[in-house]
Amino acid sequence: LEPANLRSGDELASARRDLHRHAEPAWCEVRTAALVAARLSGLGIPIKIGREVVHSERLGLPEPSELDAAYRRALDQGADPRFAALVAGGFTGVVGIVAGSSPGPTVALRFDMDANYGREARDGQRASELGYISVNAGAHHNCGHDAHTVLGLALAERLALARDSGTLHGEVRLIFQPAEEGLRGGRAMVRTGVVDGVSYLLGCHIGVQALETGTIIAGYDNILASQKFDIHFTGRNAHAGISPHEGRNAIQAAAVAVQNLLAVSRHGAGDTRVNVGRIRGGESRNAVPATATIQAEVRADTNTILRHLLQQVDNVVNGAATICGVTARVEVVGGADAASSSADLVDVVASAAAASPLVTAVRRAADFKGSDDMSCFINEVQEHGGQAVYFGLGSHLSDFHHAPRFDIDDAALPIGVDVFWRCLEQIQLVVRR
Amino acid sequence: LEPANLRSGDELASARRDLHRHAEPAWCEVRTAALVAARLSGLGIPIKIGREVVHSERLGLPEPSELDAAYRRALDQGADPRFAALVAGGFTGVVGIVAGSSPGPTVALRFDMDANYGREARDGQRASELGYISVNAGAHHNCGHDAHTVLGLALAERLALARDSGTLHGEVRLIFQPAEEGLRGGRAMVRTGVVDGVSYLLGCHIGVQALETGTIIAGYDNILASQKFDIHFTGRNAHAGISPHEGRNAIQAAAVAVQNLLAVSRHGAGDTRVNVGRIRGGESRNAVPATATIQAEVRADTNTILRHLLQQVDNVVNGAATICGVTARVEVVGGADAASSSADLVDVVASAAAASPLVTAVRRAADFKGSDDMSCFINEVQEHGGQAVYFGLGSHLSDFHHAPRFDIDDAALPIGVDVFWRCLEQIQLVVRR
Amino acid sequence: LEPANLRSGDELASARRDLHRHAEPAWCEVRTAALVAARLSGLGIPIKIGREVVHSERLGLPEPSELDAAYRRALDQGADPRFAALVAGGFTGVVGIVAGSSPGPTVALRFDMDANYGREARDGQRASELGYISVNAGAHHNCGHDAHTVLGLALAERLALARDSGTLHGEVRLIFQPAEEGLRGGRAMVRTGVVDGVSYLLGCHIGVQALETGTIIAGYDNILASQKFDIHFTGRNAHAGISPHEGRNAIQAAAVAVQNLLAVSRHGAGDTRVNVGRIRGGESRNAVPATATIQAEVRADTNTILRHLLQQVDNVVNGAATICGVTARVEVVGGADAASSSADLVDVVASAAAASPLVTAVRRAADFKGSDDMSCFINEVQEHGGQAVYFGLGSHLSDFHHAPRFDIDDAALPIGVDVFWRCLEQIQLVVRR
Amino acid sequence: LEPANLRSGDELASARRDLHRHAEPAWCEVRTAALVAARLSGLGIPIKIGREVVHSERLGLPEPSELDAAYRRALDQGADPRFAALVAGGFTGVVGIVAGSSPGPTVALRFDMDANYGREARDGQRASELGYISVNAGAHHNCGHDAHTVLGLALAERLALARDSGTLHGEVRLIFQPAEEGLRGGRAMVRTGVVDGVSYLLGCHIGVQALETGTIIAGYDNILASQKFDIHFTGRNAHAGISPHEGRNAIQAAAVAVQNLLAVSRHGAGDTRVNVGRIRGGESRNAVPATATIQAEVRADTNTILRHLLQQVDNVVNGAATICGVTARVEVVGGADAASSSADLVDVVASAAAASPLVTAVRRAADFKGSDDMSCFINEVQEHGGQAVYFGLGSHLSDFHHAPRFDIDDAALPIGVDVFWRCLEQIQLVVRR
Repeated sequence: LEPANLRSGDELASARRDLHRHAEPAWCEVRTAALVAARLSGLGIPIKIGREVVHSERLGLPEPSELDAAYRRALDQGADPRFAALVAGGFTGVVGIVAGSSPGPTVALRFDMDANYGREARDGQRASELGYISVNAGAHHNCGHDAHTVLGLALAERLALARDSGTLHGEVRLIFQPAEEGLRGGRAMVRTGVVDGVSYLLGCHIGVQALETGTIIAGYDNILASQKFDIHFTGRNAHAGISPHEGRNAIQAAAVAVQNLLAVSRHGAGDTRVNVGRIRGGESRNAVPATATIQAEVRADTNTILRHLLQQVDNVVNGAATICGVTARVEVVGGADAASSSADLVDVVASAAAASPLVTAVRRAADFKGSDDMSCFINEVQEHGGQAVYFGLGSHLSDFHHAPRFDIDDAALPIGVDVFWRCLEQIQLVVRR
Repeated sequence: LEPANLRSGDELASARRDLHRHAEPAWCEVRTAALVAARLSGLGIPIKIGREVVHSERLGLPEPSELDAAYRRALDQGADPRFAALVAGGFTGVVGIVAGSSPGPTVALRFDMDANYGREARDGQRASELGYISVNAGAHHNCGHDAHTVLGLALAERLALARDSGTLHGEVRLIFQPAEEGLRGGRAMVRTGVVDGVSYLLGCHIGVQALETGTIIAGYDNILASQKFDIHFTGRNAHAGISPHEGRNAIQAAAVAVQNLLAVSRHGAGDTRVNVGRIRGGESRNAVPATATIQAEVRADTNTILRHLLQQVDNVVNGAATICGVTARVEVVGGADAASSSADLVDVVASAAAASPLVTAVRRAADFKGSDDMSCFINEVQEHGGQAVYFGLGSHLSDFHHAPRFDIDDAALPIGVDVFWRCLEQIQLVVRR
Repeated sequence: LEPANLRSGDELASARRDLHRHAEPAWCEVRTAALVAARLSGLGIPIKIGREVVHSERLGLPEPSELDAAYRRALDQGADPRFAALVAGGFTGVVGIVAGSSPGPTVALRFDMDANYGREARDGQRASELGYISVNAGAHHNCGHDAHTVLGLALAERLALARDSGTLHGEVRLIFQPAEEGLRGGRAMVRTGVVDGVSYLLGCHIGVQALETGTIIAGYDNILASQKFDIHFTGRNAHAGISPHEGRNAIQAAAVAVQNLLAVSRHGAGDTRVNVGRIRGGESRNAVPATATIQAEVRADTNTILRHLLQQVDNVVNGAATICGVTARVEVVGGADAASSSADLVDVVASAAAASPLVTAVRRAADFKGSDDMSCFINEVQEHGGQAVYFGLGSHLSDFHHAPRFDIDDAALPIGVDVFWRCLEQIQLVVRR
Repeated sequence: LEPANLRSGDELASARRDLHRHAEPAWCEVRTAALVAARLSGLGIPIKIGREVVHSERLGLPEPSELDAAYRRALDQGADPRFAALVAGGFTGVVGIVAGSSPGPTVALRFDMDANYGREARDGQRASELGYISVNAGAHHNCGHDAHTVLGLALAERLALARDSGTLHGEVRLIFQPAEEGLRGGRAMVRTGVVDGVSYLLGCHIGVQALETGTIIAGYDNILASQKFDIHFTGRNAHAGISPHEGRNAIQAAAVAVQNLLAVSRHGAGDTRVNVGRIRGGESRNAVPATATIQAEVRADTNTILRHLLQQVDNVVNGAATICGVTARVEVVGGADAASSSADLVDVVASAAAASPLVTAVRRAADFKGSDDMSCFINEVQEHGGQAVYFGLGSHLSDFHHAPRFDIDDAALPIGVDVFWRCLEQIQLVVRR
């Protein structure tokens, strides 16, 4: 790894594809975080890492064995052992602090690093042709966080240069977050104070409501409130032929729950979402199954609606358990509140984007229509008087977010760098000469 | 392994517990089959093994990687490499042929060897105290086939002695069957001719409708017809927050199928069973799930009712797929027809049992209330003019069949050997002196 | 109405068709009961009627307005006003007592009189050609009780003649029961003592497991235990467009209940049945529905299994209500225990049937595979030391029981009379000269 | 009925309560339409009525017997027989044409007249105290159309006075629409040309998103697209005890459909609604049910989303039928497209409302969050170059729309008249002197 090499579009694309190829899911981003730490350090940027920036209370942590396997795989795939050791065990966050030579605002830029669970499709994709399909089974960068991470690294280079040339005022924190998927990592970082004292927080998401490369959405609104949870049903085994009535069917309970979770009523006051993303149940074909687990999530336009949804979820889970004579337990594994961008900072992004020669269209705002751990950072900053924006970086996509053939258009990367940079200029963090 | 050492109750129990500890599921019985082959060979009994007695068309075969892992584990656990190689890859059947010195009937004794999928409970059981809880994760002898196998080995010793002493007439085939669970191995053995020309077929099951050690049920009737099948649903992924309507939800389809499979109507002409024993679905909590697989089975008193049930299953699967806009595929992985014991041979068992000093109670008949791969052998023999019986060997059980705390009472083992032996005497295969 | 006119097959058929045409459902059999009372009285047979033989605690009684409408319709259709007044309001039972001139056994013959709810099909049936399709909307003799009633009337004539000629010994009670459908009338009659002191109880059902006219099943076994119940769900209305989340959906709860009632597990110890026969729910298409009612029933081989089923039903009802945030109430509207015929009396029927020149085939026994209010009478008699039999009167049927095109074969009627009579001779109630 | 008596708030309230008391559901508004026709005629306003303004192709028409009963009830309740005859049989529309003395715009005012199905609560309401609870069983003005109708009658009086005093320019059509509930009447009126040539169309709804009396919402946007439909399932009866497998269960199919209709996925591009408002199924508790009917509706923000929803509905219906082996038929009984108010005409209403001394608050716009047959008129006018507005008349409500205790605040009535009138002045239909 050479520092100072993320300038051209090709360099950005190449770095992004390396991350894509070595996709690491939530809390397992050992290689990614170590790579970030190494690059920042190479640029002379002081870092905080691991337990310094990730609280030990973390939602949705994988099994220790999985965390350990991720650590060993990262070493196999070239992670710097010093940094890998610091982030192993699910402490995969890094914050770089670039301090300017003169007073100025405290700005935070936030980038998420994790891949999603899922098998990347092998057929007929650019990723296949160029050889960067994920080599890590069951992990796929199908939400574009590989792109986000590279944007952060590229901006680190520019900021280091500005610092060195004396054009940087105030302070920039480059926050590299683990475990955005599942809404797990944000709270754990915020709790360590990574955005304390921040006046301006910026972040972006690629390809959300912006499917043309060159388009910028100056600020997302209505990032959905969300809760992620697992439902565990426990019944009783029995021989399915001889004594089915002795069984208490956990898969049946899960099926009742799935149907009725999906059927939870729409809400008159705003949008809602309910998803059951995974299910595992049963032991043996010929036994009434005693165990079943569902991985689910709900989202809502507002925190009030989310609470209403969660009440319905409780009703469904309890009722499904009652019907089948089984017990049920709901385990919360992630969550975030609703959030919206700050209007003034949206103006900054809109103006910056309009000024960029790489940008072909600017939309002022759009509903995010998803939930994002960025809301933890946004709410923390806004509640303490700062401003925050989550803007949209347009990109042609090869498939839907979270779908097996998802990939971004690398041409979006230099556009993202340019828009971020022009925003920093506008808020007078860096001075244009 | 010493031949000729399965005489006392302690010897039988010890051999049974060794098999219990090294439980191997269907098509993976490499150590068990190799052990059987080694013992029979050690008794001078000619064997047919592997592809000789197991047709290559087998239902419900595990993945090659699983078969291979089973082979390697068996070697680790002491399997004779010569025999292990012959049965590896899912050809785990053995037939020993004991030929008498003078003409007589051709008799087949059939024993099944496989464990079930499932995790054996670790708490407070005799198996725990005596240290024979299954060391093979996910496999548990919770249907008593470990006992059946040991009965076969003990009878092999007796038959070898009879042969050597000149008191054996005709021919006995000792059929050791793999993959009874899931109704997979029977057809594959029958197709290789293992019961061709057989006049009398005997087998037993431990603990079915006979929960007192010392009880014998002289012949089961109404072994249920059954089919085992996997249902694969394939939909389309989508981001659960941004574009849920683009998804086609395979878990939803599976849930609809589960509920409606369980709700398939009772039948006026006889008993039916429907079970969904396992489910796996989805990729990621925050994506509409594109895949789901159900492992299911149906059973019925008669083949006609089974066909009716299978028609309803097809309706449910097709309808569930239509509702959710997904595709569905049903893969048959096992099955057996209905069967009943032959009345004359039931009389033989009843008489033999009544004569045994170890037997405390004899019931002439009982409905089996389960399905069993033995029906393949029974039907084949009966269709060609022979007689067949499946008798019940009473045993106090520590839990239901297929349940996590299932274990048999080893005191049943010498009873089983004695009843089998007296039956062979009655049909004049061996002559009592 | 002329007494002594139910001798020829034509006379029996004609009387049966008159009842068929004027079908009256449970507790509304005003015309039928009045006709029975008038005929018995015309034969000089003393009767008990109405409140004398029907306890005031009755399950599943229709609304007063419906009872009143039935009373007025019966008068319109020619019911004798004296008797109609005595049975109006849901007391539609009659018992005739024929006392012999010398001592002998006390015998009860039981006949049910009610039609079922349902619309009789209008197309292409004999009932249509001969003009006896039910003129009473929503009531259809689709279970053959019209035939049973006529058998009772014909036997009354014969018994009156025997009494008058001095060949009758002991006492015969001719019990005409209302409200067999729904298992409602039996208990209410038994509680008034109608079978107290009875040594022999006989009854028959037409066409059950006996689809050939001329066949007799000498005694049914395993009449199923059953319970009939209504489930009332109460939720909360809301505008389906503006505020669906304010609603609590009673139809949804009913749908969850229907699916899961049908999915209640089979029982390893015997047959079960679950049916949801009617549903009514909701107020307006564009409002979340606040009310729904299900009419359901369960049946089982044994009372123990029935209790198990009812526990599952409770679980389903409570769970469905919990899921949807509604309240639920289960109202029991009918029920009967399991019962079987007495072996000695089965022998009597078998022997009587074998002697009848009209009978072409005799089967000793068959499972009833349904439930029947006759079980109340059977159990009461058997518990007090008497014997009871429910025999099957073969009849070709034009459709399944309870189906819209159901009709019986009138040729079965004289066969039924003859078999009953020969039974009475065998138990020496009447003496053959 | 005296013309010119709807000026004071008391007069308006009294007229409204008379309509409330005699609530008539869709296509049955015989008394209401006859009353409207009589009042308009009494004011010297020429009318078109019945088949002149209602096309014979009407969705969701009740049974002829119900229409006939409505006609006879209307006569009993004092309807003018001449007008009643003209609207009987489901032609219950009236249009009054008030022609000014000089040229001017063609304006249409549209009012809907029908009550909803539903039982009005009897307890503790003002309607109870003042004695105007609906006397027509099963019909309840729980959507405020009684208020709308009275507004139309009051405006007719004012317009007749303006016409007579020479201050009316152009032409006003007072459109009194039947069958708004269920989205049935609008299309049938539009097809007869009632809004041909209209430049300005105004209408209002009471209490939608405006729960304070005195509030005006100057124009609703996003009136939802909607379709109303009945789903008819037809299966096969069978005896639930003897031969349940012979049945094809229509209630089960309906239950599957209900669950899966409610579970149709949310849509990423806009709001959706699915409701099942009524269900009727089955014939007899003890028979597998052969028939079931569901009354349902879907709504969506856009016509595109509605089409997507309807495709899912088809999938659910077909799949539910397949699962249960029954047939299904979807009958469309109502529907309307999405619509929004014209911005310029919203400005007119906002300005008029701001000028009214009776109005306490003006909101420019709100999403309607429901569907309304007004959209047929709006779209027809807008497609031909006219402008249309649907404004909100604030009213405190005693319960949700469509709920059993719904009633409006009569104090809203004079406010509505005033705002309408000021709008007419603003568009220079009437000249303020």
